[in-house]
Amino acid sequence: MATTYFSKRNLQFLLHDVFKAEELNKYEYFSAHDRETFNLVLDSATYIADTLMHPYLKEVDKNQPELKNGQVTVHPKVKEFMKAMGDAGLIGAGFSFEHGGQQLPEMLSASVGFILMAANNGMMYTGLSSGSAHLITSFGSPELTEFYVPNMLSGQWQGTMALTEPQAGSSLSDVMTSATPQADGSYKIKGQKVFISAGDHDAVDNIVHLMLARIDGAPKGTKGISLFIVPKYRPDGNGQFVDNDVTSTGVYHKMGQKGVPAMHLTMGSNDNTVGYLVGQPHQGLPYMFQMMNEARIGVGMTAAGIATAAYYAALQYARERPQSRRLNEKNMLDAPQTTIINHPDVRRMLLFQKAVTEGSLSLLIEAARLYDISSVAEGEEKENAFLMLDLLMPVAKSYPSEMGVQSVSQSVQTFGGYGFTEDFPVEQLYRDIRITPIYEGTTGIQAQDLLGRKMTMKGGKAPQLLFAEISRTIAEASTFDELKPYADQLTDELKRVQEVMASLLPHAMKGDTERYLSDATLFLELFGIVVVAWQWLKQSVVAKQIILTQNPQGDDLTFYEGKIHTMKFFFHYEVPKTLGLAVRLKDTEVLTIVSEKELAL
Amino acid sequence: MATTYFSKRNLQFLLHDVFKAEELNKYEYFSAHDRETFNLVLDSATYIADTLMHPYLKEVDKNQPELKNGQVTVHPKVKEFMKAMGDAGLIGAGFSFEHGGQQLPEMLSASVGFILMAANNGMMYTGLSSGSAHLITSFGSPELTEFYVPNMLSGQWQGTMALTEPQAGSSLSDVMTSATPQADGSYKIKGQKVFISAGDHDAVDNIVHLMLARIDGAPKGTKGISLFIVPKYRPDGNGQFVDNDVTSTGVYHKMGQKGVPAMHLTMGSNDNTVGYLVGQPHQGLPYMFQMMNEARIGVGMTAAGIATAAYYAALQYARERPQSRRLNEKNMLDAPQTTIINHPDVRRMLLFQKAVTEGSLSLLIEAARLYDISSVAEGEEKENAFLMLDLLMPVAKSYPSEMGVQSVSQSVQTFGGYGFTEDFPVEQLYRDIRITPIYEGTTGIQAQDLLGRKMTMKGGKAPQLLFAEISRTIAEASTFDELKPYADQLTDELKRVQEVMASLLPHAMKGDTERYLSDATLFLELFGIVVVAWQWLKQSVVAKQIILTQNPQGDDLTFYEGKIHTMKFFFHYEVPKTLGLAVRLKDTEVLTIVSEKELAL
Repeated sequence: MATTYFSKRNLQFLLHDVFKAEELNKYEYFSAHDRETFNLVLDSATYIADTLMHPYLKEVDKNQPELKNGQVTVHPKVKEFMKAMGDAGLIGAGFSFEHGGQQLPEMLSASVGFILMAANNGMMYTGLSSGSAHLITSFGSPELTEFYVPNMLSGQWQGTMALTEPQAGSSLSDVMTSATPQADGSYKIKGQKVFISAGDHDAVDNIVHLMLARIDGAPKGTKGISLFIVPKYRPDGNGQFVDNDVTSTGVYHKMGQKGVPAMHLTMGSNDNTVGYLVGQPHQGLPYMFQMMNEARIGVGMTAAGIATAAYYAALQYARERPQSRRLNEKNMLDAPQTTIINHPDVRRMLLFQKAVTEGSLSLLIEAARLYDISSVAEGEEKENAFLMLDLLMPVAKSYPSEMGVQSVSQSVQTFGGYGFTEDFPVEQLYRDIRITPIYEGTTGIQAQDLLGRKMTMKGGKAPQLLFAEISRTIAEASTFDELKPYADQLTDELKRVQEVMASLLPHAMKGDTERYLSDATLFLELFGIVVVAWQWLKQSVVAKQIILTQNPQGDDLTFYEGKIHTMKFFFHYEVPKTLGLAVRLKDTEVLTIVSEKELAL
Repeated sequence: MATTYFSKRNLQFLLHDVFKAEELNKYEYFSAHDRETFNLVLDSATYIADTLMHPYLKEVDKNQPELKNGQVTVHPKVKEFMKAMGDAGLIGAGFSFEHGGQQLPEMLSASVGFILMAANNGMMYTGLSSGSAHLITSFGSPELTEFYVPNMLSGQWQGTMALTEPQAGSSLSDVMTSATPQADGSYKIKGQKVFISAGDHDAVDNIVHLMLARIDGAPKGTKGISLFIVPKYRPDGNGQFVDNDVTSTGVYHKMGQKGVPAMHLTMGSNDNTVGYLVGQPHQGLPYMFQMMNEARIGVGMTAAGIATAAYYAALQYARERPQSRRLNEKNMLDAPQTTIINHPDVRRMLLFQKAVTEGSLSLLIEAARLYDISSVAEGEEKENAFLMLDLLMPVAKSYPSEMGVQSVSQSVQTFGGYGFTEDFPVEQLYRDIRITPIYEGTTGIQAQDLLGRKMTMKGGKAPQLLFAEISRTIAEASTFDELKPYADQLTDELKRVQEVMASLLPHAMKGDTERYLSDATLFLELFGIVVVAWQWLKQSVVAKQIILTQNPQGDDLTFYEGKIHTMKFFFHYEVPKTLGLAVRLKDTEVLTIVSEKELAL
């Protein structure tokens, strides 16, 4: 159990030194908190992660939920875990005092998510409850809030997000589940939902689905979708609960994240599923999208957490495993074998993992900080934070996911043959993390969101704000001789992004969206590298300032120096990838338009 | 069963049109064969793949071999499969008539391997028998050959390669298994071997390990390792077999390729394991390395086969799955959803898969052709083919493996959420293929082999030969207006490789091997892209010639045009990646030399 799966030191560095979480106290809403309460929350999450999650990493993978006689059974520790999370106030950490929460910033809630997902991402239950309860407190009536939310935040009831249907995956405008108004103001629900995580299980007393459906006669497309609460057991009005005709039709068998059931659900098999409208009719998608940033920070944190756990497993192995001699001592057969961390190729693989995982975490905490400011600030400050967050969100979801997959692959490679076996955790983490580029909008969807909406909304104001912010970091970094070359390099990268945009925008102007977005995924990749380079430069500035002003010694000094060295690694090894991406993006040939037949023969 | 898992048309194009397999007939050794006998062999392999392998793809994954009471049980179809392979002469396809083989070129044997591995890579048994039997026919005595080889080629006995030990993975010089000479000329063997594929199972009557061990008193390091036959049951001299004290200590549980057991074996627990020396003492490693090219073509084909099967699964799904509208028709809600192959992002993912898998297959058939020429030609022709093969081998093993992993990842992504479930084969193929960058020398080892030995051996003669060959393709391509720009681009890429080498070589000259090889893996990546670009240009030249001279129609024409379009995709999307790699490789900062402590904090 006592294995390292995340770095507390790094998390503290990011939260306090780089992003100055406690400065959020200046806003009335967060004024009850200080560094001490923040640390208590992180300690409490770490305790749960250490005792109730990490020891069961393999067990939940090995005993995937099965559907038997209509009941889904999950690992017995899940119940204990959910109760502990509820008791510690961690499911409701980000909720207002009014709603029984701790009124903590998203920076902290997201950091808690990072710790939990690094410990055991197969126990991904409570984040779903938080997200769906948040929909109720944000848009639901006081009655619905009072009835559902406390039980969800206590861990006794499970919340879910029930969006996807068999014929409507990425395309939510094609949702078909129907809602028929009843005399009492409720709705009869009929339809099917697929891939509903934690959509049924026996560790809770009730399941509360936040479900998209279409009220009879509603407009077509995205403008006719409403949001409902559809519980597994509904109140009968006499203080009892009755079965709400939500049938568990199947449980998906997945490659990874096996600890949490992904359900296929059927509503209304006996015409007896009741749903309760949340907010106004036809506002389901706008409501969902207001939660999307939070959900996507969650997925990013899941990816960053998994990749971090894999990195520390690989690092430990590399420090312990002897194999061969150093390359400059090849002929010294009498010498004992060296540990593989001393082979440059292994060292490079580890640095790559450190650069990707710590860069991802930094970006996600940045996004969470913007989320907090956009929630509690006012006027221009609020608006600007919201625009920046909206722009960064596709990157903060995709970079940790896509690069996390590659990072864990390098963790596997560090182990050699053992990495492919169940003797070590990395093979599981390699399977687990592969879902993250798919969850909550695939990378392709994120790319269309970034290039198709975020880069151009409000006349391109969001990238202007971001570039101004990056320029501030560049200016700070330029005051240090050691950092100046990297600051200059980042300036060049900003120019590169602008050149690419200048070459792409004419397609959008002409209304040729298909051409404009044909390589959007590559643009997202390019943009992600630049944004994470910024995060690394930002961390280096802070590390440099601390070294110069606080005169740290020993491990502390090594930690800060390591930050600067890893920044250099990122700029020397990762940033040059933008060269090829920019060439491709500015290229005039559209090769994705090759005939279907040509692909098939 | 009738799903497509490889393209027969493409395999025929490569074998006959691009690499002109039948021209090998001009060599005496292959003179018995023509296009017709080649096709019979491929048909026979396809029949076995269709009937005995592909239908059991999921079954062998779901029922991984277990060790019970010292016995390893595998899927019952394995026995039938091995017998069919033996009866069809496919285990011994590449063996001489004298040894009971079909005397077929490696081009054909490797193509058979491709078909089988595309069908069901979890039934990776017979390639191991071929490889180990080939060691016996090449270096063993006539008595050993006569006793072991026929039973291995008939599929009644299983052959294995028993190299790896717990303390000696990539570092074979540290092999410790001991061999003590006995009065009768045999040896007592004592030691342990790990990760021995097909190292024990119940589908055969005997297991024949080709095992590396160290004769008592042998020199240290690589010069003291000998090769032995160590059977599971040994002949007692009276026509009977007795147990040879090879204990199945454990079976690894793996992430993928679950159909074939990876064994932990212990020799000599009761001091009763007998081994038979193959060839001369202390020549074990040179013997093994003479088989390495064949084995590595096999791993490359496994990767290419798996990635091809995943590509065809993704392609089928993309052609059938409706989702959303085309980007330029976003607001047409009344329109039916389009199939996802019409989304540029999906089309790009599919083209990437086609470009990687067909490029890999082409490179592997090129390598197999060089293998054949180096086996049967004479004088300079033989030597040059051998040098070229030696140079290309690290690429032909690594490119299909590394890029295959990424290709299958894109297959998963094409399926969205369904790709992560066991409802479709891609999640299994994603797990399966991850071993290929590890098998038979990890990518890091291949990279050191390429840059540390192959680029510089014989004064750099191998790259000179290769570049001359690539220049020939460039010259041919330059005669076609449509191909000329790509020929020019490839010329630039050759210059880029030379520039990188010029900046790296001084480190080698100074004897600083560690610095010289620190980014060898990135050099391998760069070199791989250039070599596969060459393969695509070569295919395009042939396709262009056929279009102009044979006036193909319908599907034929579409196929050839698709080749040229996919070449363009490769040059527009993949080749620009060399820009960033070259910048990194010419960079003077060595960032892999970051302290161990910095990584850990």
